[in-house]
Amino acid sequence: MNNVVWHKTTITNEDRKHQLKQRPFVLWFTGLSASGKSTIANIVEQKLFSLEYKTYLLDGDNVRHGLNKDLSFDEKSRVENIRRIGEVSKLFNDAGIIALTAFISPFKSDRSLVRDLFEKGNFLEVFIDSDLDICEKRDPKGMYKKARKGEIKNFTGISSPYEKPENPEIHVLNNNSTLDEVSDQIIKFLVENKYISEAK
Amino acid sequence: MNNVVWHKTTITNEDRKHQLKQRPFVLWFTGLSASGKSTIANIVEQKLFSLEYKTYLLDGDNVRHGLNKDLSFDEKSRVENIRRIGEVSKLFNDAGIIALTAFISPFKSDRSLVRDLFEKGNFLEVFIDSDLDICEKRDPKGMYKKARKGEIKNFTGISSPYEKPENPEIHVLNNNSTLDEVSDQIIKFLVENKYISEAK
Repeated sequence: MNNVVWHKTTITNEDRKHQLKQRPFVLWFTGLSASGKSTIANIVEQKLFSLEYKTYLLDGDNVRHGLNKDLSFDEKSRVENIRRIGEVSKLFNDAGIIALTAFISPFKSDRSLVRDLFEKGNFLEVFIDSDLDICEKRDPKGMYKKARKGEIKNFTGISSPYEKPENPEIHVLNNNSTLDEVSDQIIKFLVENKYISEAK
Repeated sequence: MNNVVWHKTTITNEDRKHQLKQRPFVLWFTGLSASGKSTIANIVEQKLFSLEYKTYLLDGDNVRHGLNKDLSFDEKSRVENIRRIGEVSKLFNDAGIIALTAFISPFKSDRSLVRDLFEKGNFLEVFIDSDLDICEKRDPKGMYKKARKGEIKNFTGISSPYEKPENPEIHVLNNNSTLDEVSDQIIKFLVENKYISEAK
């Protein structure tokens, strides 16, 4: 078999970027439960989609019951959960796709490990910053109530710490803002820092 | 926050297919070491790429040292290795991307578990069928030699079984064929069965 010629022309990340006409990166949303990170990540993805960008959002819905369904909620599993999401985001970036992730990811060390997987500038930490009391009032799934009663152990913000990002690339306050305002703020960052252009 | 309107318009798999103008599926290459599966998967991907399809190839290079670097080579890890590759392929399909995978995946049970993750028709098993003695002659990395000496344990085809697919969607003989012939055979299958069209 003549493998030589073909091997030389393996598709590279550069080829994929050129084909998809975009620069891949990851938007890593972090914040308390009910901070709005999933919803905002979703809207940001919709805005990117409407601008013709090729994206994919990793969240509890498509990861917990699939790739990470073997993981429990102990510390080792928690670290592994975030590690795998980071590695999969990296594969999506390698494929030329813009990745978004929406997980509480409360620990600095876990987020830092993921950051280190990426080339400088390709990992954008997006801190969705909502006050705990506001998150607790929203409580769409009644999780905070259960955590307060002790029915859920190690619940972030109540019985387990949330370590705020110190230098997130994007810091969004989401106490009284509208979803449009906060998602536009993120899109604006991407445009101003040349991750995307609004007219593709 | 007004979440209702936005939630309704979450991007679906249908939206992504429409944006990317393609039907996602997975080409699951299986075969002995040195059967040519990686090389052929690579060429098939290049042909798809040149037809403007959006694809991604998962193989040892991008999976073993990343997502699956925590896995050893015992039986439990072997099953988990294949399961994760299946789940990641599924995420790529969900993102609208055509996935290709190139792993020996010698056990029917493992491949069957992966097949069951996908909607009927979206999982295409591609059996790269090379005779053992031919693979052993090719032996590009000297692995068969080491396995024969007992320096590598549980080597597929030598000290561990390769369970041939019984009803692979695509069955390619790769003993004396050229790489162009076998990859064209796969592309032809995809066109004839309307997975792709040659003129996009």
